[in-house]
Amino acid sequence: MTLYSQLADRLREHIKLGFFKSGDKLPSVRQLANEHGVSISTVQEAYRTLEMEQLVEARPKSGYFVPETSHVISMPKLSRPPQRPLDVSLWEDVLNMLLSREKEAFCQLQHAMPDMQSKTLKPLLKSLYELNKNRPHEGMVYGDVRGDYSLREQLTRLTAASGCILHPNDIVITSGCQEALSVCLKAVTKGGDIIAVESPGFYGAMQAIKAADLKALEIPTDPSNGMSIEALQLALDQWPIKAILVTPTVNNPLGYVMPEEKKKALYQLAQEYDIAIIEDDIYGDMVYEFPRPKSIKAYDEDGRVLLCSSFSKTLAPGFRVGWIAPGRYRNNVTHIKYVSSSMCPTLPQIAIANFIRQGGYDKHIRVMRKHYKEARDKMLNGIKTYFPSDTLVSYPEGGFVLWVELPERYDAVKLSEKAQEHGVHVAPGQLFSATGKYRNCLRLNYCDRTPEIRLEALKILGNILLNMNTLETKQQKKRA
Amino acid sequence: MTLYSQLADRLREHIKLGFFKSGDKLPSVRQLANEHGVSISTVQEAYRTLEMEQLVEARPKSGYFVPETSHVISMPKLSRPPQRPLDVSLWEDVLNMLLSREKEAFCQLQHAMPDMQSKTLKPLLKSLYELNKNRPHEGMVYGDVRGDYSLREQLTRLTAASGCILHPNDIVITSGCQEALSVCLKAVTKGGDIIAVESPGFYGAMQAIKAADLKALEIPTDPSNGMSIEALQLALDQWPIKAILVTPTVNNPLGYVMPEEKKKALYQLAQEYDIAIIEDDIYGDMVYEFPRPKSIKAYDEDGRVLLCSSFSKTLAPGFRVGWIAPGRYRNNVTHIKYVSSSMCPTLPQIAIANFIRQGGYDKHIRVMRKHYKEARDKMLNGIKTYFPSDTLVSYPEGGFVLWVELPERYDAVKLSEKAQEHGVHVAPGQLFSATGKYRNCLRLNYCDRTPEIRLEALKILGNILLNMNTLETKQQKKRA
Ligand SMILES: Cc1ncc(COP(=O)(O)O)c(C=O)c1O
Ligand SMILES: Cc1ncc(COP(=O)(O)O)c(C=O)c1O
Repeated sequence: MTLYSQLADRLREHIKLGFFKSGDKLPSVRQLANEHGVSISTVQEAYRTLEMEQLVEARPKSGYFVPETSHVISMPKLSRPPQRPLDVSLWEDVLNMLLSREKEAFCQLQHAMPDMQSKTLKPLLKSLYELNKNRPHEGMVYGDVRGDYSLREQLTRLTAASGCILHPNDIVITSGCQEALSVCLKAVTKGGDIIAVESPGFYGAMQAIKAADLKALEIPTDPSNGMSIEALQLALDQWPIKAILVTPTVNNPLGYVMPEEKKKALYQLAQEYDIAIIEDDIYGDMVYEFPRPKSIKAYDEDGRVLLCSSFSKTLAPGFRVGWIAPGRYRNNVTHIKYVSSSMCPTLPQIAIANFIRQGGYDKHIRVMRKHYKEARDKMLNGIKTYFPSDTLVSYPEGGFVLWVELPERYDAVKLSEKAQEHGVHVAPGQLFSATGKYRNCLRLNYCDRTPEIRLEALKILGNILLNMNTLETKQQKKRA
Repeated sequence: MTLYSQLADRLREHIKLGFFKSGDKLPSVRQLANEHGVSISTVQEAYRTLEMEQLVEARPKSGYFVPETSHVISMPKLSRPPQRPLDVSLWEDVLNMLLSREKEAFCQLQHAMPDMQSKTLKPLLKSLYELNKNRPHEGMVYGDVRGDYSLREQLTRLTAASGCILHPNDIVITSGCQEALSVCLKAVTKGGDIIAVESPGFYGAMQAIKAADLKALEIPTDPSNGMSIEALQLALDQWPIKAILVTPTVNNPLGYVMPEEKKKALYQLAQEYDIAIIEDDIYGDMVYEFPRPKSIKAYDEDGRVLLCSSFSKTLAPGFRVGWIAPGRYRNNVTHIKYVSSSMCPTLPQIAIANFIRQGGYDKHIRVMRKHYKEARDKMLNGIKTYFPSDTLVSYPEGGFVLWVELPERYDAVKLSEKAQEHGVHVAPGQLFSATGKYRNCLRLNYCDRTPEIRLEALKILGNILLNMNTLETKQQKKRA
């Protein structure tokens, strides 16, 4: 563990234990540096971490304070997955969750489907039905296997915002980001190869690794800034890793944004070991901060980064429009995309291209970013209110999902089953691991239904947890 | 070679050499049986073969005649591909053809895209546009990964017509038949495995074999009735084949329908060697005969047949709606479909389900079958008129493509290049082989533009062939 995170841990504990209370001034940077025998910049980094968790607040010229209304929930610690390549399991559990969607449910916190009620989406829907009405022929023929040119043109504009300079022919359209990930995995590996992934990580990527007959090596991941570079380097020294698959800008399930310096370091490691990076940027445009951070692809000098994304989190997943900027793997990626599903339906592509060109996309994501940020704060408050006090929660910097780490005595699978009986659905944490770690964790969205209903759902979850706890204590007493 | 095909060959030669002329009565069945020392049924089978080639005509109660207007083009012979598993090549050529589509071209005979002008498609397009207008939300959310239930229900009806008894949950919707084939290949193989395929065979399937890291073993294929069962058995004895991939009902590119007995024999072989059959039925509903022949899946007792199809040839390829009936491989197929591209867009599925339910589908394919049959006869006439007299042509029993085997002195790749300069596109035969055989062959559709334009295109092709021939003769003279 780095010095600054040790220090951050200690400060966090002190705040949580009540040594410092809401509104209190915290020790100065210099004071702490002396006390702990560390550098000024280490203390600054520690404070920055706590600031991100909203545990401290910087006031210009006066130093750091405990905020008046701090949400006071700690982040989970750096993950510690087993450091060897493993086969991915748990498909049955993923499928069960995928099929668990019900119209009648009270609140479905298990999926990662954006809120699509905003009227800023209207022009897109209008354009789509008008295309279907007036230009049906274009929707009927085989189109370009690389995707509609007008959309690829607009994508060069969107990706420019994350620092990428691309030509439309550097882009291949896919059936969502899921196909993008699967195609890229196949483009850079052979059966049996090892892929380094975040831990926890997106289950769709884990299952794609399984289906491509690859092994996943889960790298320790810091819930506030991503995959540990040190741990990654150790793994690269020890194993013949073929590619690194990361979701560095608004991670799913943790929500962090990997800092720019760390992105660069990760890219340099990939260069040093001459391997590919598959960068999943699906939530990249949904970061709350503006302008959005650069992608790793922005630093790509030699075409080793395969950037994958889709409109599933920004617009609507049902359109199934994603893309790959495959760098030097373009020929291979085009081939695999062709055999995977041939071309993608054309009209949604044209409609989305028009929507971007006419400014509708920028406007929509501006509105949604604000909307989700507010929703996040309410969600964190709800968790603080209703969940056990030693619950840890990630602090998303974008998107609409967060990660909850319950105290180890809780089983999230059992929680999930019980909650379903009350019409509340959650995603058990084990799906986000190759091998069923994180049994005490869960991912929750904060986009289904309304904030009020979500709060109500959290209350239901909290009550179940309370009962599970009591039940266990009773059983323990009985046994004793 | 079987007795009946030897006899058919001899009769064919006699007709072609002019021993029997248009309108002539042919020897009676009994007479021929005596002459050649074969059974009555052998002679009948020989005549049946020639009848299918339209070289003879049965007149009730009077025997067999040379038709007044026989197209008098022979079928190509049984193919003779190298009998060992090979890596698939030629991706660059496939890609070039895929990207060669041009709005301005005079006639595009290279693709296999149905004629979509028929007004019987109107209700489908209307329904699609109305769904987009009135129920956009269903088009935006993540749907069932197995596909829309209403469509799967209707598919149990369609597949019943080919003899299959399925439940909606026995079906998985895919992004076209291409995804269906890719998913099935992965569901039943591991890298390095061998797949038995027809020769010639559909290039999309060949390329899927390449992408899945498999080897193709091309089995000798009879242009009038499909993969040779004898050759298949020999191959099964010699190689550890994992699956047989066939398009037995209206083959692409040859157009034959494998007879029922042969389908049964193929299934029994698969049982005997305990391997899977991937059955591509994409043109199955486009057979000219009514009711349509059974699929191999109809004989499937133990779930080893994975039936693949789509609406790309019956309705429109741009919808990208296909499906798999995966039999005993359902769990694996669902997993691979999920990682391959997650769910498919919902609204086209609902629109197609409605179209089937309301009878629009049956009506449309009735109209199209008649339409294509007429187009085939005109096309065969055109080839007879404009192509070298020793050209061989397949005799499609459905669909809208046929296979031309030019005399060996012609190079179809050169023909294709020259023809493109005149705005005429063709599919060079080598794409339909794992390794570039069939350089003197081509596949032509008879659905692009109008019959008149297609005839004109054939004339252009014929002229190029004439010039190629003269040029070659001149060069030969020069060399001599
Ligand atoms: C990180 C991540 N990558 C990829 C995907 C798949 O996206 P799509 O629906 O566009 O296939 C998801 C969807 O949940 C995701 O969260
Ligand atoms: C025999 C065969 N199988 C599969 C396909 C792929 O069909 P789809 O466009 O539905 O993916 C084709 C298309 O040309 C085909 O001819």
